[in-house]
Amino acid sequence: MRKIEHIGIAVRDLDESEKLFSLLLGAEPYKREHVESQEVMTSFFRLGNNKIELLQATSEQSVITKFLDKKGPGFHHVAYAVGDIRKEMKRLKEQGFQLLNEGPVKGADNKIVCFLHPRDTNGILIELVQEA
Amino acid sequence: MRKIEHIGIAVRDLDESEKLFSLLLGAEPYKREHVESQEVMTSFFRLGNNKIELLQATSEQSVITKFLDKKGPGFHHVAYAVGDIRKEMKRLKEQGFQLLNEGPVKGADNKIVCFLHPRDTNGILIELVQEA
Repeated sequence: MRKIEHIGIAVRDLDESEKLFSLLLGAEPYKREHVESQEVMTSFFRLGNNKIELLQATSEQSVITKFLDKKGPGFHHVAYAVGDIRKEMKRLKEQGFQLLNEGPVKGADNKIVCFLHPRDTNGILIELVQEA
Repeated sequence: MRKIEHIGIAVRDLDESEKLFSLLLGAEPYKREHVESQEVMTSFFRLGNNKIELLQATSEQSVITKFLDKKGPGFHHVAYAVGDIRKEMKRLKEQGFQLLNEGPVKGADNKIVCFLHPRDTNGILIELVQEA
């Protein structure tokens, strides 16, 4: 794993949270993107070599709706950049980590991604990301 | 703010979590450090230009003991690297963010640090860090 690609933050109101993070980070978001498969609208900030991704649900069935109901707004996941996602998935599976996707799936920001079950990772939802 | 300096992860058993994160990240921790003011033992991993900090309580009064009682193991905070922490503290205070330290305090890994109240930051405990 090469770096923290981004951290994902669950928010209730993307407009409000974009204003908040613009103040906090001293930078504007560089794009919004709708990730249909996850039913989320995302907004991205750059921070040096890393990114911050805000996540707002676009439906009642979205994973973010469920997350907010259970835990409220806050940290949702951390994404690690990998060079070869299939190789990393194989390696981690062999070491006993549970993958939440059988193969890489399309993620936001032109990436292919895979999630690891937080049960195996000290309670942290982890996303592996590779440039698509 | 320049980059994600590290993310801090609350753990129950540092030995076990070091093994877990060594497998996960494919890297060994590069140091342990006792932060007496916070009553925590920390362990650090490098990941490119970022770090992962594991945090284990060293007392019942530790902030990490309270965190684990309330939320269980998992994401605890994100630290952003800043060039001039006093300037950033002043800027953020003027913008209405609540600082949890009046001045910078000594943190782990040869840093001076300041925390922001998660109430103002979308539920995320944020640490500003500057090289000491």
